[in-house]
Amino acid sequence: MDELGRKTAAEVKGASKIPVIVVLENIRSAYNVGSVFRTADAFLLEGVYLVGYTAFPPHKEIHKTALGAEESVSWKHFKTMAEAIEAIHQLGYTLMAAEQTDRSVALHQWEEPVGPGLALVLGNEVTGVELETLKACEQVLEIPQLGMKHSLNIATAAGVMLWEIVRRKIISNG
Amino acid sequence: MDELGRKTAAEVKGASKIPVIVVLENIRSAYNVGSVFRTADAFLLEGVYLVGYTAFPPHKEIHKTALGAEESVSWKHFKTMAEAIEAIHQLGYTLMAAEQTDRSVALHQWEEPVGPGLALVLGNEVTGVELETLKACEQVLEIPQLGMKHSLNIATAAGVMLWEIVRRKIISNG
Repeated sequence: MDELGRKTAAEVKGASKIPVIVVLENIRSAYNVGSVFRTADAFLLEGVYLVGYTAFPPHKEIHKTALGAEESVSWKHFKTMAEAIEAIHQLGYTLMAAEQTDRSVALHQWEEPVGPGLALVLGNEVTGVELETLKACEQVLEIPQLGMKHSLNIATAAGVMLWEIVRRKIISNG
Repeated sequence: MDELGRKTAAEVKGASKIPVIVVLENIRSAYNVGSVFRTADAFLLEGVYLVGYTAFPPHKEIHKTALGAEESVSWKHFKTMAEAIEAIHQLGYTLMAAEQTDRSVALHQWEEPVGPGLALVLGNEVTGVELETLKACEQVLEIPQLGMKHSLNIATAAGVMLWEIVRRKIISNG
C-alpha cells in the first residue's frame, strides 16, 4: 500500500475533502450504491447520504462494487429526504438534483453556485428524483443525451456529474 | 417514443455521430460492456470495438445493462488488439488508452489531438490495458484519483472520460 502512495482508510477519512455530498434517494440496486462509494472515494468527496430504501453498509452487494471504499468514505443514512435536506441546509450547501426536467441545465452550461458546498441528489433507477425533492432543489442538472435511450446508468451518471464538479474545483484551485 | 422526441434505433444508427470509438480490451464483466453501450448511445458515439474475450451481442448480460443500446450503437468484434488497432489506423484515428502510467496525462490537463477522430481503449478490470497496447497508443489519459482505492469501476471511468471528450466537442461546436 505504502509503496503505491495510497492512503489508508483512516488517512482518507481525515484528509481535506472536496465539499460535495452525493445523495442517493431510493436507489434499488446496492451494486449501484457500491459503485458510487468507489467514485466518491476516487474524487475524495465529503460524503454520501443514503436515503429511504437505499441500501447502506455493511452490505454484501455494496462491498462487492465499492471494494472497500465504504470504509474510507463518510456516509449517513436518513429515513426520509426531509431529514436529509434539513442536514444539507444546516451545512449551508446548495441542493441540486440530477434529472431531466423543463428547468434542468445542461452539464456543460452549468454555472457553479457560490457557497460552502454542494449536495447532488440522484434518484431511483426507474422513477428518478421525487417531485417533492425536485421542488426543494435550487438547481437541476442534466447530462446531454444525444442518442436513443435518453438515460445513463445511475453510477455512470453520478461519475460524469461528479467529474464535472470536481474538474472545476481542481482547475479553480490551480 | 415520438412524444418524447426519442430517436429510433435506425434513426440513431443513421444520425451524424461523434467520431469517437470506445475499445474494450479483454473486459471480464458483460454487465460493464452493456453499461458502456448505454453510455455510447447517450453520447451518440461512432461505435464500440469489442476485443479479445470481451463479450459481444447478442448477450443476455449485455442486454440487461445496455437496455437496448446494443441495437442503436454500431459495434465490431476483433479477436486481437492488433486487428483492432489496424482498423483504427485505417480510419486515421488517434489511439488513446485509459490507464495510470508514468506518461499518462490527467484528464483535466489533456489536450485534444488534431485529427479526424479518437479511439479510447479501456482494459481489463484487474490487469488494465495490455503493455503491448499501451506501446501503440499515442496518448494515455488518467482520471485524477484523490482517494484510497485509486481506481474507478470501468463503466464509470468510461463515462467520465467520454463526457470530457464529448463536452469539449459540444463546446467547440458552439
